[in-house]
Amino acid sequence: MKLMNTNWNYPTSVWFGAGRINDLPLACQKTGIKKPLLVTDKGLVKLDIVENTKRILKEAGVDFTVFSDVQGNPTEANVLNGLAHYTKNGHDGVIAFGGGSAIDAAKAIAFMSGQSLSLWDFEDVGDNWTHADINGIVPIVAIPTTAGTGSEVGRASVILDEKSQNKKIIFHPKMLPEVVILDPELTLGLPAHITAWTGVDAMVHAIEAYIAPGYHPMAEGIAIEAIRIIAKYLPVAFTHGSDIEARGQMLVAASMGATAFQKGLGSVHSIAHQLGAIYNKEHGLLNAILLPYALKQNKPAIEEKMAYLSKVLELPTHGTDAIIAYILALRNKLDIPHTLKEIGINDDEAERIGKMAFLDPSTPSNAMPLSADDLEKLFRAALQGDLNTL
Amino acid sequence: MKLMNTNWNYPTSVWFGAGRINDLPLACQKTGIKKPLLVTDKGLVKLDIVENTKRILKEAGVDFTVFSDVQGNPTEANVLNGLAHYTKNGHDGVIAFGGGSAIDAAKAIAFMSGQSLSLWDFEDVGDNWTHADINGIVPIVAIPTTAGTGSEVGRASVILDEKSQNKKIIFHPKMLPEVVILDPELTLGLPAHITAWTGVDAMVHAIEAYIAPGYHPMAEGIAIEAIRIIAKYLPVAFTHGSDIEARGQMLVAASMGATAFQKGLGSVHSIAHQLGAIYNKEHGLLNAILLPYALKQNKPAIEEKMAYLSKVLELPTHGTDAIIAYILALRNKLDIPHTLKEIGINDDEAERIGKMAFLDPSTPSNAMPLSADDLEKLFRAALQGDLNTL
Repeated sequence: MKLMNTNWNYPTSVWFGAGRINDLPLACQKTGIKKPLLVTDKGLVKLDIVENTKRILKEAGVDFTVFSDVQGNPTEANVLNGLAHYTKNGHDGVIAFGGGSAIDAAKAIAFMSGQSLSLWDFEDVGDNWTHADINGIVPIVAIPTTAGTGSEVGRASVILDEKSQNKKIIFHPKMLPEVVILDPELTLGLPAHITAWTGVDAMVHAIEAYIAPGYHPMAEGIAIEAIRIIAKYLPVAFTHGSDIEARGQMLVAASMGATAFQKGLGSVHSIAHQLGAIYNKEHGLLNAILLPYALKQNKPAIEEKMAYLSKVLELPTHGTDAIIAYILALRNKLDIPHTLKEIGINDDEAERIGKMAFLDPSTPSNAMPLSADDLEKLFRAALQGDLNTL
Repeated sequence: MKLMNTNWNYPTSVWFGAGRINDLPLACQKTGIKKPLLVTDKGLVKLDIVENTKRILKEAGVDFTVFSDVQGNPTEANVLNGLAHYTKNGHDGVIAFGGGSAIDAAKAIAFMSGQSLSLWDFEDVGDNWTHADINGIVPIVAIPTTAGTGSEVGRASVILDEKSQNKKIIFHPKMLPEVVILDPELTLGLPAHITAWTGVDAMVHAIEAYIAPGYHPMAEGIAIEAIRIIAKYLPVAFTHGSDIEARGQMLVAASMGATAFQKGLGSVHSIAHQLGAIYNKEHGLLNAILLPYALKQNKPAIEEKMAYLSKVLELPTHGTDAIIAYILALRNKLDIPHTLKEIGINDDEAERIGKMAFLDPSTPSNAMPLSADDLEKLFRAALQGDLNTL
């Protein structure tokens, strides 16, 4: 496999290749952005990859400012502060640079830049999105620096409502970035544990999309191929962080996982959204811990698909149990804990978590219908590490 | 599998489901078309599915006219006549209704409706497409009535230049229809031989895209899943034409094949384009005859991918030979001839065909580099039915 520079056009315009960050000024030009706001996060803004990106923009004569007051699990306040910064400086577009948090915040800023209603009016419930002023949404160029979230090819942002301790989804088709730059060089410096958590996050996206009950063969084809790529390259990227091919394959697979999950997500996300909001834990890590438990609980509904997937992955046996065993071994190889307890979560809020997870937008697209009790049971199993209770 | 109505959003907005033709007025509304030109072909215009579509538009109060002077392998004259009809009647958008010929002609009419340059100025060579006036391209709603071409999700039309006996590709990103309606009820009446030819055409799209040398894992994932669906459902649709699930799966797989081939096509198309132009034979039939010969010739470059594909198809053996044997058996089941000779083609033009095929836009994306001599050899082998000369 030769990782040549290449562009493709679905679900949006994707520019792939090592060093493609140098095409960022061109991306601004193509999307008609003259004065971009570069949105990134507090940690990234100190790193060379941001410095280098700023240099590229400066050398091309692009007038821009930086907003980096974005935390993990970004909040309404992050978005509103970014919006104030955007308006004060007279921007006309957004560069979303970072992991899921920075990209989600950036997309929300671009979306809100010309709206008269407020952020939560656009929570992804019913047809709220149709109340947006489509001309008030500015173009976004998205540049992921982790291979996981896939938010760069998504049409939604997940923003934390601190008041209700609730992660809310803001959705609009025009939140899909117009150009995505996938440059594996930007991910070479990721620490191994972030590579692992975000990489399994991408796999969770693909698996939940694949087993979601809707009819969307194109999403399923993309999901299966993403899983195959992640299975092959995530262990390489984890162990050899500077392997540019593994990094490139993971970036593409992450964007495929997120493309696929327009079909729907499932119970892993239903629970992880709540735990992220209450305990402020990393989304990818939560997903990675929860995945095998969710597969076990969904087993009655997914046996046929898991049988095919285990053939694709060339596992020695075929079916849901084979996939669970494979995931457990992979997690082990990636030093991901087996229980939520190990990362400091307890059962104090178990009942509430079950109830809130039931209301999560990912629950209706789970492979099979689950009640609040089922979801509480899933949470408790992942807390204690007991697959057999499911 | 439950073929529920469903919509998806890549590569464009796709509305799938039995009876979705009833949503055509809504599609016109969504795309801002007030007075559509319905473009179809000479054969279809006499059928109930066109009558029914006209009734749906009338009952919804949509003001439209019909243009059906489109032949198989549509010509520049077809497009220009359609364009004159479009302009005379003051239309503001196009409904593309039919197989590949009608849809390609319709897309070309929508594209040309507001251009000052002429059709061949936009042949897909270099950056010709950038000379188009993007505001001069009107929206297209595409409704395929065969499961093969996939032109409904493509950004190009193939139009015959009768003077030079050359099929030329007209390309522009905005030729991608804004809404696609995939309604399997429209394909229930397809004769078995058309089902077979168009179905194998879809498979050729997916296979040539999969083995094209570019890096585009999303296209490859879509292609593999399309091949798997076609392998399962084409024999059913051929034998039981009224099986709505098989018809639906084939429609989706055809659109997936064409989505995938943004990655590139190969020598099957390089030759078929020439034979279509010179002998006016059906594109799908030509592709179906040529496929195994092209795979044999490409064998040195595709062994690994064919090994994986034969596992996906659960064939008893794995590799290029296994896939060729499978294709030969499938063609036999579908009553598709083994040689070009059987459909009235001879070797009079063999040398010219090799030379023209070499210049075809599909040739550079063939799985391995081929010379004009190689392509002539491929043509001669398919003419005589001799796989062993390759």
